[in-house]
Amino acid sequence: MTYCLAMKLESGLVFASDTRTNAGVDYVTAYGKMHVFQHGDERLFVLLSAGNLATTHEMVDIMRRDLAAGGGVASLADGRQPFEVAQYVGTVSTQVQQRHRQALNSSGTSGEVTLILGGQIRGSEPEIFLIYPQGNYIHASRQTPYLQIGESKYGKPMLDRVLSTATSLNDGARLALVSLDATMRSNLTVGPPFDLAIYPRDAFALSCHQRIQVDSDFYQRFRNAWREGLEDAFKRLPPFDWEPPGGT
Amino acid sequence: MTYCLAMKLESGLVFASDTRTNAGVDYVTAYGKMHVFQHGDERLFVLLSAGNLATTHEMVDIMRRDLAAGGGVASLADGRQPFEVAQYVGTVSTQVQQRHRQALNSSGTSGEVTLILGGQIRGSEPEIFLIYPQGNYIHASRQTPYLQIGESKYGKPMLDRVLSTATSLNDGARLALVSLDATMRSNLTVGPPFDLAIYPRDAFALSCHQRIQVDSDFYQRFRNAWREGLEDAFKRLPPFDWEPPGGT
Repeated sequence: MTYCLAMKLESGLVFASDTRTNAGVDYVTAYGKMHVFQHGDERLFVLLSAGNLATTHEMVDIMRRDLAAGGGVASLADGRQPFEVAQYVGTVSTQVQQRHRQALNSSGTSGEVTLILGGQIRGSEPEIFLIYPQGNYIHASRQTPYLQIGESKYGKPMLDRVLSTATSLNDGARLALVSLDATMRSNLTVGPPFDLAIYPRDAFALSCHQRIQVDSDFYQRFRNAWREGLEDAFKRLPPFDWEPPGGT
Repeated sequence: MTYCLAMKLESGLVFASDTRTNAGVDYVTAYGKMHVFQHGDERLFVLLSAGNLATTHEMVDIMRRDLAAGGGVASLADGRQPFEVAQYVGTVSTQVQQRHRQALNSSGTSGEVTLILGGQIRGSEPEIFLIYPQGNYIHASRQTPYLQIGESKYGKPMLDRVLSTATSLNDGARLALVSLDATMRSNLTVGPPFDLAIYPRDAFALSCHQRIQVDSDFYQRFRNAWREGLEDAFKRLPPFDWEPPGGT
């Protein structure tokens, strides 16, 4: 399993993903699920993937080859609006799945991938999309300014409670780590290290693109602060009517 | 959908459930999913249910009739250990499902229920069980002293982080409300009011059995305190390396 999320904030975009990949319980390893595509200073896109790892790898290879071709074939460089890039990525996804469908189905495996694509084209607004295995897509909304793929439920309550489009990029990144940490604790198939990327609006470059190890000083301080904060929040909950004042 | 949970703590048992029931999106209403069975001062059991509402109602009717019969038929009064009561409840569940299986299957519906049963028999320890639709069961464990049924993922991270067998009954009840509140916010099919029951070890009576309305003074204070506590916890998270000291 996998957990990836992206946020669309007033000041830019935030992307985060785990790196746990497993093919059965025997073969567990870490793979990046975050792929960055930059085309000059005119467009930048980040792709997050959940699902069949081979489909993702073949997709990324094709997308990089198409982009390097410099015209004459469909690529990430086409289109003036981000949704046209989402259409292209959806097409590449369904074509790769189609190529292997018969062989995969005959061995009872699925080649499906669910993707998050986010980025900006100069002259357009930053945008994020969730691209379904069938190649169609949805946007985030102003009310729910984030998208999730994979094991999304454990990490959703804090997003619903705290996130708004006015959240700063750094606060968004902290919230993404809180969401990943909650998921990792409750589900063994989502695991560290975590990949984190921040895209400031109109920058056409990532201001942060880091792999965060859970045994790093920063993450230990982060996790301890969060645990202590939650414990304090829990202690401050009001007593029930039937409790004596001053403790249980 | 539904969300119910039970905790097995050193000082007793805690039970909580939502009340949202829906048959399609058109027909949404509130039904109790918590049923209490008391047999003199010798045994007390609480049943929580997720799944087909008709199966649950017929099961509860049968269990009450069997208990009132006062012997001669299998009932909750049989057995000297709680697992024997779990076996009886599992049998009632599969029998009710079997009775309606053909009719339900022919209309594409499932009669399955997943249950939590908890309680105590005098002379035995308090115990909680998760009873599968097939009638078999599992216990909670010392490492994971709770059981959940229904829409369990949203409310799981706080349980994993805070709950231990040493948690007091009242703190356990507060944690159950935190878990229900997180689930309700992230999933429309889980809804208030909430039912809450507390069973102190060796009491053979519930010390609390309340329906908690979300517009009550208590719940408003509870929810505000939790929101403020989470916001404070979030503000106390450490800055990233790249952030200037003193704010983003």
